[in-house]
Amino acid sequence: MATDDPPAQPEEPVVIEATTAPRGDATPRPGTTAELAPLDPDEARAAALEIREIAEQRADDDDGDASAVTLQLPTSAVPADEPLSVDELRDAWDVLDIAERLDGVRLLPREDAEDFFIALPAVDQVAVVLALRPGDQRSWLRLLEPDDVADVVQEAPEDQRGRLLGLLDGPTRKEVEALLAYEEDEAGGLMNPRYARLRAQMTADEAISYLRRQARSRLETIYYAYVLDHDQKLLGVVSFRDLFRAPPTRVVSEIMEREVVSANEELDQEALSRLFAEHDLTVVPIVDAQGVMKGIVTVDDIVDVVREEATEDAQKFGGMEALEVPYLQSRRREMIRKRGAWLTVLLVGEMLTATALGFFEKDIAKAAVLTLFIPLIISSGGNSGSQASTLVIRAMALGEVRAADWWRVMRRELATGLALGVLLGVVGLVRILIWGVAGAYGDHYFLIAGAVSFSLIGVVMFGTLAGSMLPFVLRRIGADPASASAPFVATLVDVTGLVIYFAMAHIFLHGTLL
Amino acid sequence: MATDDPPAQPEEPVVIEATTAPRGDATPRPGTTAELAPLDPDEARAAALEIREIAEQRADDDDGDASAVTLQLPTSAVPADEPLSVDELRDAWDVLDIAERLDGVRLLPREDAEDFFIALPAVDQVAVVLALRPGDQRSWLRLLEPDDVADVVQEAPEDQRGRLLGLLDGPTRKEVEALLAYEEDEAGGLMNPRYARLRAQMTADEAISYLRRQARSRLETIYYAYVLDHDQKLLGVVSFRDLFRAPPTRVVSEIMEREVVSANEELDQEALSRLFAEHDLTVVPIVDAQGVMKGIVTVDDIVDVVREEATEDAQKFGGMEALEVPYLQSRRREMIRKRGAWLTVLLVGEMLTATALGFFEKDIAKAAVLTLFIPLIISSGGNSGSQASTLVIRAMALGEVRAADWWRVMRRELATGLALGVLLGVVGLVRILIWGVAGAYGDHYFLIAGAVSFSLIGVVMFGTLAGSMLPFVLRRIGADPASASAPFVATLVDVTGLVIYFAMAHIFLHGTLL
Repeated sequence: MATDDPPAQPEEPVVIEATTAPRGDATPRPGTTAELAPLDPDEARAAALEIREIAEQRADDDDGDASAVTLQLPTSAVPADEPLSVDELRDAWDVLDIAERLDGVRLLPREDAEDFFIALPAVDQVAVVLALRPGDQRSWLRLLEPDDVADVVQEAPEDQRGRLLGLLDGPTRKEVEALLAYEEDEAGGLMNPRYARLRAQMTADEAISYLRRQARSRLETIYYAYVLDHDQKLLGVVSFRDLFRAPPTRVVSEIMEREVVSANEELDQEALSRLFAEHDLTVVPIVDAQGVMKGIVTVDDIVDVVREEATEDAQKFGGMEALEVPYLQSRRREMIRKRGAWLTVLLVGEMLTATALGFFEKDIAKAAVLTLFIPLIISSGGNSGSQASTLVIRAMALGEVRAADWWRVMRRELATGLALGVLLGVVGLVRILIWGVAGAYGDHYFLIAGAVSFSLIGVVMFGTLAGSMLPFVLRRIGADPASASAPFVATLVDVTGLVIYFAMAHIFLHGTLL
Repeated sequence: MATDDPPAQPEEPVVIEATTAPRGDATPRPGTTAELAPLDPDEARAAALEIREIAEQRADDDDGDASAVTLQLPTSAVPADEPLSVDELRDAWDVLDIAERLDGVRLLPREDAEDFFIALPAVDQVAVVLALRPGDQRSWLRLLEPDDVADVVQEAPEDQRGRLLGLLDGPTRKEVEALLAYEEDEAGGLMNPRYARLRAQMTADEAISYLRRQARSRLETIYYAYVLDHDQKLLGVVSFRDLFRAPPTRVVSEIMEREVVSANEELDQEALSRLFAEHDLTVVPIVDAQGVMKGIVTVDDIVDVVREEATEDAQKFGGMEALEVPYLQSRRREMIRKRGAWLTVLLVGEMLTATALGFFEKDIAKAAVLTLFIPLIISSGGNSGSQASTLVIRAMALGEVRAADWWRVMRRELATGLALGVLLGVVGLVRILIWGVAGAYGDHYFLIAGAVSFSLIGVVMFGTLAGSMLPFVLRRIGADPASASAPFVATLVDVTGLVIYFAMAHIFLHGTLL
């Protein structure tokens, strides 16, 4: 424990006053500000009934899992005039339109409604806020922490952003504006600027009472406190637990951990989530290039990031642009645009197969039997390519495979591709020989079987190699490796597959069918 | 605040004595038990050099992200005799074999080595432990929390499990054995049985001093304490922060939150991760069917779950069985088995296309030009199906789409599929007309263009529908929706695509080419 370099006098820590109400870690209990005009009784009953019906239908067949969450009410036993519960609204939420959602929120007891609103994803929060009367928007927006407000503003249409910012009180608006300077997907865009600060010379006891006072304010967490020097540079971190178990008179600089894992404000959120996973962290302080502390990111925000990134990757891998809203909420127009764009590109790519087959049209006219195996051969190439690219994309996302590993991956995939090709080649050979003996493919069935079998070996090897290397190529040119989608790889492999097949056919069938 | 039902006398909370050393939340500082025989100096230098070389190579081109993590050393500036750093080992780790990994761990300062070991995934921990001398295994295994030990034992080969359990001290062994009764992927398998307990009648001040004493023991967290009745049933939860801001003489039962979101011990880990996300939770208490508290799951474990589930889903969607180890560490044999099995199944399925095309062999012989468009048409079906199934699989994993929503999804996808089909049909039409005018497809090119264009509409609609409904079907029969992989959907759609195409060809070309 180094006590010989007492840090310089830090600035007096800033305690930010609660502007609406204190919000604890466990149970946010917002104040009295977010009131909505109640629905008239008939409307209320009708809306509650409709939402309850949807909730029951969706809750019942959610593969039995829902019943294992203990707060869930047995919905079928709810009497008709029982007020709507937050769990019912949650069950129905994903399929409700915005008017129904607003009715649902208005039907809840106020405290439940606020807790429910705070836990919503930003894209839903912005829809709710914008659907409220301007007078209500202010109080609901003020329920949120600055980092969440920043997300809401980012999700809002551009012409609404300035107005939403205007609804905040002065200090919060400044915090939010500072956060808006970051990209949505970098560490700075995820962080909360309200963290607990300590001075290095405080004793453990002083630090604890000091944090006790801060417990009333709107800090993200008081369980980790950061020790800063007079330039706001990060000197160390101390957990509440360590303060607690230290002798009361020991000073913070002797208790704190100096080797802090921190992240630069511009770090990409995917890399940040790897940092959390690699070090098993709960909170990461965010610093700028000069080491000045900017805020903290907590692990619960990282769960959302990991889910979001996995969804984007999956959608890209499925061969489309990533959607920005939940599937059931996305507009049809946008959906068609995002899916149609890629399908068209792939169709245009696939047209090369028509061109390639054009060169073999005479062969086909001579030996129509060759056509029978075209789908089988090209799809085997596509399937093996899609396997290989998934493996590499996913391992890259987890940080297991890095750019420098392309050669390791290639060696592995060459060997694997050969083995898989031989496996499929044998299966194909057996199938064609059996049908051939039964007379399906004419006299030269054994030659056809040979051509198909060797084509399968070649196509599978090529597919495996192309699928595993494409993510590296995409990353190299600055694109997202996840765009090496199953359809993209398949299209890439199809033309080659056809060329390999007809080349094999020429070798095997020259002088007989061709 | 209900003070009128004071809970019955709970059992005296159990404080579990630290068996090796206390481990804080922020900075685990294990004790003196985990020592390894040092390498001899020459070996040490050679091993350090090799690991450093790999680390430099892999760190340098990790798309610039690595440099944004501030603890990273500028590796190129490290003098040759500098001891190996934990960051260097971490950079090289994924490509090292087990002997190199062990050397790396031995080269680190002991405290760093232990921290590094504790943060490893279970599959790596078990490999390290099993590679150690039996005498060392005990002390390293004892560094881990009971839930982590349970994971390690579960990952170990069956014949080693009993022996590993025998290395633990009595109380821990009992805890671990209780955890091993759960499936790996259910809430009980993730929970830590060491949580902070309070009695309902304690005052806030008593509770704080009581937790202060517990801060020295090996509890997962002291920041959330659970209030139990005499049957160990969960009465409420209180955050440290709420205790802190309460008047010192108020009793816990007045401060605690009674509406606790808890999860049943058998809840599937995917549903558990949704629970965390939906409620923005940091800790969830796990209870049995009778409401008896069993342990807690913290959000940092959920990050691993979400990553793991996303990886499994991606691998299944890529058309293979999920791997259980990182890509670069998986054995070639296992890799070939897991990929080969699905490829063979798909090949056998794809052989139906040969059978289907067999029926049209005479058509093909008459009009070889039809063959040119086969790959284009079937791949368009596969691509649109793969898009649709990704969307549905991912939305199901996030809980946005539930089984009851199949009809909503079908309506959406019918409309979307029609729009996408028309889009591709028009693109296909234009392409063939242009080439046709240039003389590529003979006299009847406009009829061919019509047949291809209408086939595209039909195939895309069918692909979209099949791709979006298959995950529902799989879920209904108890299979994983993620198995509705791109290759699976493509294979399913190919035969139908061929039938649609030749049907259209008959309609358009009857009396001319056919």
